[in-house]
Amino acid sequence: MPEDYKCRNTLVDSLLTDLYQITMAYAYWKNGCAHKHSVFEAFFRKNPFKGEFTIFAGLDEVMRFISDFKFTKEQLDFLKTLLPHAEDEFFEYLSTVSGKDLSIYAIDEGTIVFPRLPLIRVEGPLAVAQLVETTILNLINFPSLITTNAARLRLAAGADKTLLEFGLRRAQGPDGACSASKYSYLGGFDATSNVQVAKLDGIKCSGTHAHSFILAYSCVDELKTRKMKPKVKLSEEKLPSPSSSLGSPCKEDEVDFVDLVFSMREKLGFEHTNTSELVAFIAYAQAFPDGFLALVDTYNTLTSGVPNYLCVACALSFLGYQPIGVRLDSGDLAYLSKASRALIDNIADKFDFPKLRLSKIVASNDISEEVLHSLNGQGHAIDVFGIGTKLVTCSGQPALGCVYKLVEIEGKPRIKLSQVRSKMTLPCSKQVYRLCGKKGTAVLDLMGVEDKEFPKVGGQTLCIHPTDETRRVYVCPTEIVKLVSPYWIKGEFVKKMPTLAELKSYVASNIKLIREDHKRPLNPTPYKVSVSVELHGIIRDLWIQESPVSTLE
Amino acid sequence: MPEDYKCRNTLVDSLLTDLYQITMAYAYWKNGCAHKHSVFEAFFRKNPFKGEFTIFAGLDEVMRFISDFKFTKEQLDFLKTLLPHAEDEFFEYLSTVSGKDLSIYAIDEGTIVFPRLPLIRVEGPLAVAQLVETTILNLINFPSLITTNAARLRLAAGADKTLLEFGLRRAQGPDGACSASKYSYLGGFDATSNVQVAKLDGIKCSGTHAHSFILAYSCVDELKTRKMKPKVKLSEEKLPSPSSSLGSPCKEDEVDFVDLVFSMREKLGFEHTNTSELVAFIAYAQAFPDGFLALVDTYNTLTSGVPNYLCVACALSFLGYQPIGVRLDSGDLAYLSKASRALIDNIADKFDFPKLRLSKIVASNDISEEVLHSLNGQGHAIDVFGIGTKLVTCSGQPALGCVYKLVEIEGKPRIKLSQVRSKMTLPCSKQVYRLCGKKGTAVLDLMGVEDKEFPKVGGQTLCIHPTDETRRVYVCPTEIVKLVSPYWIKGEFVKKMPTLAELKSYVASNIKLIREDHKRPLNPTPYKVSVSVELHGIIRDLWIQESPVSTLE
Repeated sequence: MPEDYKCRNTLVDSLLTDLYQITMAYAYWKNGCAHKHSVFEAFFRKNPFKGEFTIFAGLDEVMRFISDFKFTKEQLDFLKTLLPHAEDEFFEYLSTVSGKDLSIYAIDEGTIVFPRLPLIRVEGPLAVAQLVETTILNLINFPSLITTNAARLRLAAGADKTLLEFGLRRAQGPDGACSASKYSYLGGFDATSNVQVAKLDGIKCSGTHAHSFILAYSCVDELKTRKMKPKVKLSEEKLPSPSSSLGSPCKEDEVDFVDLVFSMREKLGFEHTNTSELVAFIAYAQAFPDGFLALVDTYNTLTSGVPNYLCVACALSFLGYQPIGVRLDSGDLAYLSKASRALIDNIADKFDFPKLRLSKIVASNDISEEVLHSLNGQGHAIDVFGIGTKLVTCSGQPALGCVYKLVEIEGKPRIKLSQVRSKMTLPCSKQVYRLCGKKGTAVLDLMGVEDKEFPKVGGQTLCIHPTDETRRVYVCPTEIVKLVSPYWIKGEFVKKMPTLAELKSYVASNIKLIREDHKRPLNPTPYKVSVSVELHGIIRDLWIQESPVSTLE
Repeated sequence: MPEDYKCRNTLVDSLLTDLYQITMAYAYWKNGCAHKHSVFEAFFRKNPFKGEFTIFAGLDEVMRFISDFKFTKEQLDFLKTLLPHAEDEFFEYLSTVSGKDLSIYAIDEGTIVFPRLPLIRVEGPLAVAQLVETTILNLINFPSLITTNAARLRLAAGADKTLLEFGLRRAQGPDGACSASKYSYLGGFDATSNVQVAKLDGIKCSGTHAHSFILAYSCVDELKTRKMKPKVKLSEEKLPSPSSSLGSPCKEDEVDFVDLVFSMREKLGFEHTNTSELVAFIAYAQAFPDGFLALVDTYNTLTSGVPNYLCVACALSFLGYQPIGVRLDSGDLAYLSKASRALIDNIADKFDFPKLRLSKIVASNDISEEVLHSLNGQGHAIDVFGIGTKLVTCSGQPALGCVYKLVEIEGKPRIKLSQVRSKMTLPCSKQVYRLCGKKGTAVLDLMGVEDKEFPKVGGQTLCIHPTDETRRVYVCPTEIVKLVSPYWIKGEFVKKMPTLAELKSYVASNIKLIREDHKRPLNPTPYKVSVSVELHGIIRDLWIQESPVSTLE
């Protein structure tokens, strides 16, 4: 790994943790348990957004953290102030621990995952494996949540739509925003408005102008120049009537673009639009003649914004430029998109600007998964969705509840009981076998004790529900994928970390492995996650052993 | 300001922005409008969490950003790749702009604020004031939201409870977490579990142990030492029977603490508790004899956890240490807290450990504002609340919708209309006068044109609703507070930035200025925000001037 394979955010270091990790480490050290070989697993109990799948993300960040994990003298000095009565030898001990004490096994980033699967397994001395808990959870919870949210929005919008992430201003802080941009892209978005992330992660960047741009203009005299250079040689007879002379070529191959637009306005019959809006559109087109996308809802979308777009777009088309389209940022998007599309197509046909029909309609007002489904139901003419707040804050469910639990210590399996049986943890270092049926579709994920058993292709495998042993199923897989693999063994990377582009294409293909009914928005079918016969036996024995027996008095 | 008065997060610089700010800046520059003197204001339209107040926060971060705002050569080189057709002179222009071109006026951080109030006013050249929009919004939206959330939780819990922030693992990324810790403290929390923020911001840090600590122990042989040094001189006759010899002093003033706890267990009649849990409690107490707080729900709160706590707590009390208490992390918190309290008090009285009654009950399972109100309704015995996910992600409303709008250009007021009248923006550089009635209670916030008018104490002031002129009220204030003040004038700080501790105490006092009915959880009364007669006139004139007139055909 390169030297600079470190967390981007300088807040991420060994102190980005809960104090109780430090106090527990001290207690372990004090009782002589700090060195005990232990195994922890990170998993979640419930898919987000009322769905039945999750995309696992954040592993690259975790590996950056683990491979750089240590305590500096300055950090230890601070910790001493928090634990003033702790023995000095403890801090000497902490100064010797590092990520090299640990081994990390994980499911590949970008894999579609389900409740209870061990996403990350950490093996090593009890105190060290404990110390990394909080940071690992912080680094996977939000990335997995946002990637899943983006993937769901992609499914809702359809493969043929363009999805843009616009959430920087409303995200939960600067790197809430930057994580959102990066992991939205991973989950299926095409571009972001966030320039910082475009630079850091090489993601396509997108954006045009805001309402304030429209408000900044009031009359045509404010424009420094009236000119624009045609992209193609102009044919005299196509000059717009009635005032064709105004738009005609002037010195140095330039035309008076302002006159051209105003004569287009007359020709198209849009004299009653808001003039200051039209001036703003002209100003933007002069700066970006090949990138003209107009925000059309500042005054009135259908009586001012779209007509003004058409005046400028026709003038640009006339000069050989291809206008991009319009952006709707308020109102009834289903109706306005269809009405805008009709108006654009009508003008394109009536005044013979065929390429104007290629104008895109961008919509960007508080779009959510529900809004996308509703728009699909009503019918709409939107080509591009700009999605902000509800994507980046995951307003449908703003946190994924990943937890990190001890599953084995000194080779002995451990279980955490709960009065709610479904909240019981599953003991042992676990491997996950994804059992696939016909056409490679994943039908069930089977958790077994690592290195102990291996279901066979074609063989009958008994799969038992993790907490309800009466629910059992035989599976006869045609293909088996082992999901958990080693990434880092005591200081050495044993697997290459993929690039963001590789991860993005992996997400897109992996999500296709499960049936559509697991992915549908309303009442999706839960995907089956089971335990092997051997693991089930261990769970049952521990359950009986650890359950308290009450005394009837 | 000190040299290092910069944003803590290195992602915050001039590129942490939406691309459209750059494209707009280019268009302004290209049309010769970049230099135009303009005024932008940041405000929100709706209070979060179905409430009627908001605490404004994030100004310090904004000032760090503005005072350091500039484009480096590396940043400009990247921007060129995004705008390949832009003229080189534009990037030369960008290399000359900085935060020194701007002046910043703001409402003080920590002030209780309401919809439409100008939180921050930015004055300066159009292009530069536009370029800082996204970053400013990002830096105030989440801090204001989380501070408000914390303040609401403090109101719900009551002034006598201790509130701990526990959300690091579930927050939206590393600095989502760190912002949450900092601004929860600002809003009224007492401490955080986040070590990083404790270090950076000097906030009190809190934490003990997790379920994994309990699971890490199984039998008493695992303890390296059985001993503990008494804090006080022991009186022989108070040694626990029936096995008083086990707990008696041994060499070097130490007692066999394990035996002491087990004999307490026998004495108290708790032989059927989970022994591995008891061993874990012993291990923790040995490390923190003066900080013993036990997580009691791993097996069964009332039949194992609390009894085991009592065995260890009585042993500690016997040795002169003061145990801290128990933490409940699952189940019915109202019932379990009362039952735990009864059990603890019963043992304290029955076995004469009066200080055991000081044991605190900490609760920490998915606490939200609604849960606090519900617990208050049912009655509970909780002293300390540890609040995580629902605090730090603001799950009730995960984004505050602050916006940044152009209100004036070259001295001329600007308005943005909307088909929804309440979404209209208010023109002009504005001042806010907080009009107070008897006993200093704030009764109404009046927005007027800056430097134009000043309501007088004792005088009758006509206040008009911002978007419904039929709603008017006369106020006769006994005190007037001017809320907007200059912070930064073209490169110079003109106001001192307060410390976090100063801000925290300001929040606590400021929130008391408004009536209780504005703060109640259910159907609170909206606080009145109005415009002055003069500002109302400007709004009305602009509204008529800018509204499109449709043609009936």
